[in-house]
Amino acid sequence: MLQIGMLVYPMMFDLDLIGPQTFFQRLGDANVFHVGKSRAPVVSDLGVSYTPQQDFASCPRDLDILFVPGGLKGTIAAMRDDATLDFLADRGSRAGYVTSVCTGSLLLGAAGLLNGYQAAGYWMVRDLLPLFGAEVVHQRVVIDRNRVTGAGVTAGLDFGLALAAALRGRERAETLQLLVEYDPQPPFHAGAPETAPAPVVEHLRAMREAELVAAREAVAAAVQRLKRP
Amino acid sequence: MLQIGMLVYPMMFDLDLIGPQTFFQRLGDANVFHVGKSRAPVVSDLGVSYTPQQDFASCPRDLDILFVPGGLKGTIAAMRDDATLDFLADRGSRAGYVTSVCTGSLLLGAAGLLNGYQAAGYWMVRDLLPLFGAEVVHQRVVIDRNRVTGAGVTAGLDFGLALAAALRGRERAETLQLLVEYDPQPPFHAGAPETAPAPVVEHLRAMREAELVAAREAVAAAVQRLKRP
Repeated sequence: MLQIGMLVYPMMFDLDLIGPQTFFQRLGDANVFHVGKSRAPVVSDLGVSYTPQQDFASCPRDLDILFVPGGLKGTIAAMRDDATLDFLADRGSRAGYVTSVCTGSLLLGAAGLLNGYQAAGYWMVRDLLPLFGAEVVHQRVVIDRNRVTGAGVTAGLDFGLALAAALRGRERAETLQLLVEYDPQPPFHAGAPETAPAPVVEHLRAMREAELVAAREAVAAAVQRLKRP
Repeated sequence: MLQIGMLVYPMMFDLDLIGPQTFFQRLGDANVFHVGKSRAPVVSDLGVSYTPQQDFASCPRDLDILFVPGGLKGTIAAMRDDATLDFLADRGSRAGYVTSVCTGSLLLGAAGLLNGYQAAGYWMVRDLLPLFGAEVVHQRVVIDRNRVTGAGVTAGLDFGLALAAALRGRERAETLQLLVEYDPQPPFHAGAPETAPAPVVEHLRAMREAELVAAREAVAAAVQRLKRP
């Protein structure tokens, strides 16, 4: 049976978690669970409480998939948490697939798991990934050996299907795609910084300026931490 | 302040709820809450427990948006629950927008809220909507006066953006689209029954045969209920 551990942490983005989980839980013969620093409920960006089925100590040592969701503020805090980084480094060192969506790839990087790998990430912060030794690729989903990383939030759907196909074959992935009627037709074309109107891109960057500064500082601290013997 | 009430019920699809909520909660000046039959936690299709902030009695009488997620097994049970149908009929009679994603439109129909309206629904059961007096439209999002209904599961993203634009204008919707990097690139083309390989469509229908029979029976019972004086 596949063992799939999904990290949950305060202020993570719900959609980052729920999108991939929708596919993981229907891979067939898979044990999908949330892993938290403790078993205490974790409150997300939307205010939903997720109660982890496993904590860092009880989580199976060998995972088929280790998954990390994003969530900008939450990711910044988690990048400064030794217990979280140690847990990811340990399970990631043996996992079948080491995976993330959105700012989750910053956490993988902070745990030393993307050094020498190609990776995707949230458009607003992906330029920080090279500080962890990763090569950024501007794609929805990037697969490099056993690292599978997605772009921002909704990329978790494309990511989930790509991973389902890698694990169970194309026909199972297509069945899952039809099950959730994933035939997207966004009413606007603003889903990427390259296609969104410039004022929209600038407005969003300005709104997030404080978090972007904090993210850069947290990455710098995590890089120093990785250099320690 | 916008009052946005999102129905939660056992075995609902998490993505049906979380997709639209991701946009609702960032409309600005909006109070978004989950409404359950009671305040007891509701366990979803993925096994997540959602604790409603409001129950049917405490829910504000006048909602700007009444939203109903889908979830096939859960929807079938809810269509047979008088308290749920009475609640939807009451709040729906006054709500600014009466909305749903996926099989949620069956629940709106069962509450008498789609009679004479165009509507969308989950591909596998949308042919049941005319039994409630609705005209089915094969689109991701259907807006007919104040009824806004989406197709299956992932259509909640297109739905959320369309409603965000209706309420707050195109630029706000575009900002939300970029925030969640909604630039979908599904790796396969199996997201609609018209584009999926025929064996995939047949396999999924066969897997769901028992639920489809149960859905048809629940709709017939709800139609009889609506005819009672």
